[in-house]
Amino acid sequence: MFFHRQELQFKATPDKPDAVFARKLQEVLGGQYGEITVAMQYGFQSWNSHLPGKYRDMLFGIGAEEMGHVEMLATMIAQLLEDAPLGITKDAVQADPTVAAVMGGMDVQHAIVAGAGARPVDSNGNPWSGAYITASGNLMADFHANANAEMQGRVQVARLYHMTDDSGVRDLLAFLLARDTMHQNQWLRAIEQLKEDGLEQLPVPSNFPQKKEVTEVSYQYLNFSDGAAAGDGPWASGPTPDGNGEFSYHEGPTTSAPMPPPTRPDSRLFGTTDVPNRVEKMASAVQDKLHKE
Amino acid sequence: MFFHRQELQFKATPDKPDAVFARKLQEVLGGQYGEITVAMQYGFQSWNSHLPGKYRDMLFGIGAEEMGHVEMLATMIAQLLEDAPLGITKDAVQADPTVAAVMGGMDVQHAIVAGAGARPVDSNGNPWSGAYITASGNLMADFHANANAEMQGRVQVARLYHMTDDSGVRDLLAFLLARDTMHQNQWLRAIEQLKEDGLEQLPVPSNFPQKKEVTEVSYQYLNFSDGAAAGDGPWASGPTPDGNGEFSYHEGPTTSAPMPPPTRPDSRLFGTTDVPNRVEKMASAVQDKLHKE
Amino acid sequence: MFFHRQELQFKATPDKPDAVFARKLQEVLGGQYGEITVAMQYGFQSWNSHLPGKYRDMLFGIGAEEMGHVEMLATMIAQLLEDAPLGITKDAVQADPTVAAVMGGMDVQHAIVAGAGARPVDSNGNPWSGAYITASGNLMADFHANANAEMQGRVQVARLYHMTDDSGVRDLLAFLLARDTMHQNQWLRAIEQLKEDGLEQLPVPSNFPQKKEVTEVSYQYLNFSDGAAAGDGPWASGPTPDGNGEFSYHEGPTTSAPMPPPTRPDSRLFGTTDVPNRVEKMASAVQDKLHKE
Amino acid sequence: MFFHRQELQFKATPDKPDAVFARKLQEVLGGQYGEITVAMQYGFQSWNSHLPGKYRDMLFGIGAEEMGHVEMLATMIAQLLEDAPLGITKDAVQADPTVAAVMGGMDVQHAIVAGAGARPVDSNGNPWSGAYITASGNLMADFHANANAEMQGRVQVARLYHMTDDSGVRDLLAFLLARDTMHQNQWLRAIEQLKEDGLEQLPVPSNFPQKKEVTEVSYQYLNFSDGAAAGDGPWASGPTPDGNGEFSYHEGPTTSAPMPPPTRPDSRLFGTTDVPNRVEKMASAVQDKLHKE
Amino acid sequence: MFFHRQELQFKATPDKPDAVFARKLQEVLGGQYGEITVAMQYGFQSWNSHLPGKYRDMLFGIGAEEMGHVEMLATMIAQLLEDAPLGITKDAVQADPTVAAVMGGMDVQHAIVAGAGARPVDSNGNPWSGAYITASGNLMADFHANANAEMQGRVQVARLYHMTDDSGVRDLLAFLLARDTMHQNQWLRAIEQLKEDGLEQLPVPSNFPQKKEVTEVSYQYLNFSDGAAAGDGPWASGPTPDGNGEFSYHEGPTTSAPMPPPTRPDSRLFGTTDVPNRVEKMASAVQDKLHKE
Amino acid sequence: MFFHRQELQFKATPDKPDAVFARKLQEVLGGQYGEITVAMQYGFQSWNSHLPGKYRDMLFGIGAEEMGHVEMLATMIAQLLEDAPLGITKDAVQADPTVAAVMGGMDVQHAIVAGAGARPVDSNGNPWSGAYITASGNLMADFHANANAEMQGRVQVARLYHMTDDSGVRDLLAFLLARDTMHQNQWLRAIEQLKEDGLEQLPVPSNFPQKKEVTEVSYQYLNFSDGAAAGDGPWASGPTPDGNGEFSYHEGPTTSAPMPPPTRPDSRLFGTTDVPNRVEKMASAVQDKLHKE
Repeated sequence: MFFHRQELQFKATPDKPDAVFARKLQEVLGGQYGEITVAMQYGFQSWNSHLPGKYRDMLFGIGAEEMGHVEMLATMIAQLLEDAPLGITKDAVQADPTVAAVMGGMDVQHAIVAGAGARPVDSNGNPWSGAYITASGNLMADFHANANAEMQGRVQVARLYHMTDDSGVRDLLAFLLARDTMHQNQWLRAIEQLKEDGLEQLPVPSNFPQKKEVTEVSYQYLNFSDGAAAGDGPWASGPTPDGNGEFSYHEGPTTSAPMPPPTRPDSRLFGTTDVPNRVEKMASAVQDKLHKE
Repeated sequence: MFFHRQELQFKATPDKPDAVFARKLQEVLGGQYGEITVAMQYGFQSWNSHLPGKYRDMLFGIGAEEMGHVEMLATMIAQLLEDAPLGITKDAVQADPTVAAVMGGMDVQHAIVAGAGARPVDSNGNPWSGAYITASGNLMADFHANANAEMQGRVQVARLYHMTDDSGVRDLLAFLLARDTMHQNQWLRAIEQLKEDGLEQLPVPSNFPQKKEVTEVSYQYLNFSDGAAAGDGPWASGPTPDGNGEFSYHEGPTTSAPMPPPTRPDSRLFGTTDVPNRVEKMASAVQDKLHKE
Repeated sequence: MFFHRQELQFKATPDKPDAVFARKLQEVLGGQYGEITVAMQYGFQSWNSHLPGKYRDMLFGIGAEEMGHVEMLATMIAQLLEDAPLGITKDAVQADPTVAAVMGGMDVQHAIVAGAGARPVDSNGNPWSGAYITASGNLMADFHANANAEMQGRVQVARLYHMTDDSGVRDLLAFLLARDTMHQNQWLRAIEQLKEDGLEQLPVPSNFPQKKEVTEVSYQYLNFSDGAAAGDGPWASGPTPDGNGEFSYHEGPTTSAPMPPPTRPDSRLFGTTDVPNRVEKMASAVQDKLHKE
Repeated sequence: MFFHRQELQFKATPDKPDAVFARKLQEVLGGQYGEITVAMQYGFQSWNSHLPGKYRDMLFGIGAEEMGHVEMLATMIAQLLEDAPLGITKDAVQADPTVAAVMGGMDVQHAIVAGAGARPVDSNGNPWSGAYITASGNLMADFHANANAEMQGRVQVARLYHMTDDSGVRDLLAFLLARDTMHQNQWLRAIEQLKEDGLEQLPVPSNFPQKKEVTEVSYQYLNFSDGAAAGDGPWASGPTPDGNGEFSYHEGPTTSAPMPPPTRPDSRLFGTTDVPNRVEKMASAVQDKLHKE
Repeated sequence: MFFHRQELQFKATPDKPDAVFARKLQEVLGGQYGEITVAMQYGFQSWNSHLPGKYRDMLFGIGAEEMGHVEMLATMIAQLLEDAPLGITKDAVQADPTVAAVMGGMDVQHAIVAGAGARPVDSNGNPWSGAYITASGNLMADFHANANAEMQGRVQVARLYHMTDDSGVRDLLAFLLARDTMHQNQWLRAIEQLKEDGLEQLPVPSNFPQKKEVTEVSYQYLNFSDGAAAGDGPWASGPTPDGNGEFSYHEGPTTSAPMPPPTRPDSRLFGTTDVPNRVEKMASAVQDKLHKE
Repeated sequence: MFFHRQELQFKATPDKPDAVFARKLQEVLGGQYGEITVAMQYGFQSWNSHLPGKYRDMLFGIGAEEMGHVEMLATMIAQLLEDAPLGITKDAVQADPTVAAVMGGMDVQHAIVAGAGARPVDSNGNPWSGAYITASGNLMADFHANANAEMQGRVQVARLYHMTDDSGVRDLLAFLLARDTMHQNQWLRAIEQLKEDGLEQLPVPSNFPQKKEVTEVSYQYLNFSDGAAAGDGPWASGPTPDGNGEFSYHEGPTTSAPMPPPTRPDSRLFGTTDVPNRVEKMASAVQDKLHKE
């Protein structure tokens, strides 16, 4: 169960409205790596978890925090939109280029659809999608997804930090940057702990018996491009991170197989094949033969 | 530029057709973590790369391999569909429950739309989406995205391995498992190399000055749920992976701020406010006053 | 801020697993009118609210409850999936038609993608979309959206109730039906209260001056089909619910205007017009004239 | 069957082109609550209707009108785009900020994709989606969906009215406002008539026996937030609109249940559990025991 | 304007319900090439047309017919669903495998969401999307899109014809096949007429001056694969359909350019570059130098 | 298999960065008819092909070329973004309207999400979708899809050509225009060759026996609008392109059928019917009768 308290985790008030920045801030609210994504991702990972104890408790604990971040950003965006201009006429633009800039840069649905409110969309207006989240039931894989989400998120917040000079907005971003720092560290530490607890190892999933894979190619770097420097990396020689092998370097594939012949499904699917043609040829051959006789 | 060779990297021929498994296999072709995703993800990361040399060459080298994996899976799926039944009538079902099972389990668009061919969709028929890929320009973040993609992919292939007993299909899956093993190791090793080369550190992005974030909360574990075990993890105490701090544990938030007052945008956006009501009250107060006088 | 408690609002445990019903239950978790929709809808309506007090407090109060419903359904679905079969081989089907039925009816991504876990999707596997929610800033309009959402939701839960005979599942559905009953009543009562408080009237938005609309057609029922019974309804005569007019009935439109001529945009957009043709005709006319002279 | 007449229901010609407003107007053509939505929604409701007579005739009658509104808006948008500028060069911008404003504010696909034509998208370019419509077969639920659609639509048109001063555009919007007024009234009246005709009552669906729900919580207002004013509303005490109960007010939940234990699905789905760890511990305990003996 | 008549263009009544076929039939109602697509496509092409007269009149004339086809299919689907079973229990399946087959093969949203009604989705439940349609303003391009749509549509209907033996359904499909025959012929004839009328020629758009393209490669077949037979086609030698050139055949590209160097955008976007590394190296070089001195 | 070479097919370097044009160019990279579409479309058509030889070799040969076009456009876009401004403050705008224009016209996700890199989206930021491609297995239908794709693509590139005066960008567009010229010709020639080879004829699919369709309406032009000129076209009289019939012209439909009665599905789907009402009326009639007796 979730309980709401009418307080924010941090002050979320801009110095002054800025409809253009409101649109940009939508990215970290409703984008691929926005706060809705992490709130939902940690939620589904906890609900689907097959393991009681510290990992699941952590997922529950951080998921609820992220829902509060969704709220902080939505609240901030609504305030940034407080004096969003209604529209533009050619005369108004010629009088004041600032108005034109704001109109061109804002999300028009903020006004038309939401009446100066936040929306569950990214900075280009794409609706948030359930396809953004990852919850496989394998915690090692999922914690890498989480670390990535917090990194992408922090990169985006850092970029946004330099796209405004509003100190109120920057304060909130500075808070989110700090929490992303925490959460990156948290997931990376949790990944190590999974190994220490003997719950998962590399390669993921570690309980699939590796001998069933085509082990000849398990540690081969195969270069399908012509960049010479690819072989200079530590992925082309030396021990592998999973501790099970040695990297080797190869130009192109080390295996190959001929293309299988084209398929011939049921003729009532009306795909194009050369059968009609062959039939025709056969018929004409028969006719030829008949004529000759 | 890309050049195509009419050969496959590995044999991709099933023992016999199986339209139900063809549908399942779509997941690792056109799903969130299917081969189209990694082919496109590595492609965009290489095209957007700001760094010549071994990292970009690796991205080019592996991206082209993954396009070949798209091809292997599409070819396999087409063969699995070769004798896909056209449909079902009630009589046929009662005569043979197998037909019913196949019809219920297959992707009907395989027949109706593609004429027994592979499609750029996942195992539920959702079209592949450009929103699946990640290419931020920050290699540390993106390599974590890549490691995650290879882990999720390997988990899915391992699951599929146990959903069929066709040895031809299993051979291809065994090959893909091995390449996913390689690619997991490759990205994890590349992450370490980025640090060794001094190109990126934790937290990502490491060239954003950390002192600008709200450092008080940069390493605090804040438990927004009531799971006692959350504090037992190494994310609640001890040194942080980025080497810059010490984790600490806290029940709930360590900061808070009052909710800002509701916004009052332009009245021509027709949001609901108590202004009309207040006006009414004001008018009635004026009337009251007049009556009294 | 949101706080999580590791308890459910109601028991959410099935008598026994049922992967086919797990898929169906996804509709009321991640569908157009599922619990994610109402949780997010009430959240955004509260964050965008321009009015402090009882309406906003109610939105906050119910939004958090709905997040708990998301959790109950996800938890239930994970349990329904606990013994989801991995796959099917033709031999297995012929031996046991039940297996075939389960495989045909379940969501294969439940196994392949989520490892027997709930997903943020509907019963056909479409990801939840931010486009499902409504938060316009106009409370009268939005409360009608809310009443509708609770009605559609209750209709769906009632249908699902008759698609299972698992008493554990039915208990949870019986709880959700009751809460939907409450919430339907709540929104309908709140709509009346908005009018009583003088905050909004019909037609919505009531503070747009109605005299600016084309008032001749404001209360005309225009029948663009040939169904004679359309005129029997109370929408064809009698007073209108907004109290501002009288319905009248008309066969087809009462107004009309000629089609404007086709547009002729910049020729560098390469649309098809008859200009080239006319030029040609002109040229040929000129030539004709020259020849004659 | 549908028949087309080359006339519009109302004049749809702007005073002069305005590519920026053309983009905004897309919202009420192809947005969530645009004219395509209501045309399709009423269409599917009529085709799926289980009831001949006045309700179905009304759905047929209004659905065809809305298709004509789609046409009016598409025609208007094409004219607004008639002199859409092709592009922008830095020099041109510095010479004339108006051009910059237009380029920034217009939908670039209007030019690149449609050659100065209307598109089936909203004001942010999101394609119209079948997921926008509602047709459940339950008329009481669906008429609430319809009333909401007409309210959201009228709110959006009213906002757009104040975003232009083009009298031709405003004339069309004034017409659409009037028809939305009619349609709001129509659906609200039809809702009452459904009750009067004894076809549906509250709560929807009324023919699901209410005694099967968990009736204890059917009329409880449960406050999951800490807003004190939530209890002041008429949804916290007094009779309920369905006439079947009395509202009561409660802080938080009145029921609760423990979280069920985490699930343990088939190990070949490779979810993370503590089983390997336990096995390890068991093995080490066995070894300890052996050593001791 | 559109007017509706309560009649169908052709009988659309199945011999008996069949929920599995109802799902399949959704493809030609709400799929990529379903009737909604052609109705909307011809609609937008007519509204955006820059040319009065026979072409636009034809677009208007056929668009309205297609809306009637949407209606016929929706009506048919509702009837096919009339006895859709509500669900399944394990006992029921073991008793009757037919029920299992139906449950596995039907669209569960038909029951849960639409109450046994048609939906604006394809046969996998993907909502119809505005992104399916094409209306560029260039009639030659668009008529090819139309011819393709009618061909894909007829292929799908022909496949569906063999997936049922219900004579009522087959009658409707036979009607749709005939209309698709007409419409294929219609668009192909209209393409020729555009050329005869001098409105468009090949290549499209023909009024872009071809001398501005890189004419060296305008008629080169460049083989980027290793299939020897590619050169046997008439696209590798001989005159080109546009009458402006001669095809020639080449192995791989005839032009090439070096990759441009990687970009170096603003450092506050936090992309990974070797600048930090270079700075480090520079610093160490300075130190080395200092030590030596 | 695909092999990558670190060279481009043509120079892809702009004279100078232009973030606004970068956004527009996304259309032909990741839009409905962008290069990703044709690369994937030709790929899936070749993998699904049922016919070895020249057609499949051509599909392989051109598909790989198109992947190289994806790369050229991505590389170009990254360079166009090289000096994309980070953001805007009101002061900056008032000082320089050019900055405002750039900010209003650029894709903000280019900076926030991709760090000045290309993205797999169209010019409005919609992610590329697998739903854009066509691969039916019927080559005649698919080659019409291909011809259309190359026409739409060339129209868009021609429009973009006039939206920039950067000679580097125009050079690349001039190259793409030439290749689109080639590919239009190629597909049109291949269509003719399919007929000459006796593989497919009109109407598509030609191996569905045409006598099974409702032949009365196979060549009737039915005018569902009131445009008199529709009958002037060659689609209203004269021989049909498939050589099998004669066009004829008709006002409206030549066939019709009554609407079937509304459906009455299982009452536990809770659709609205008049059954309750009828029951009520029946009961009241019974009561009346009893009273009278």
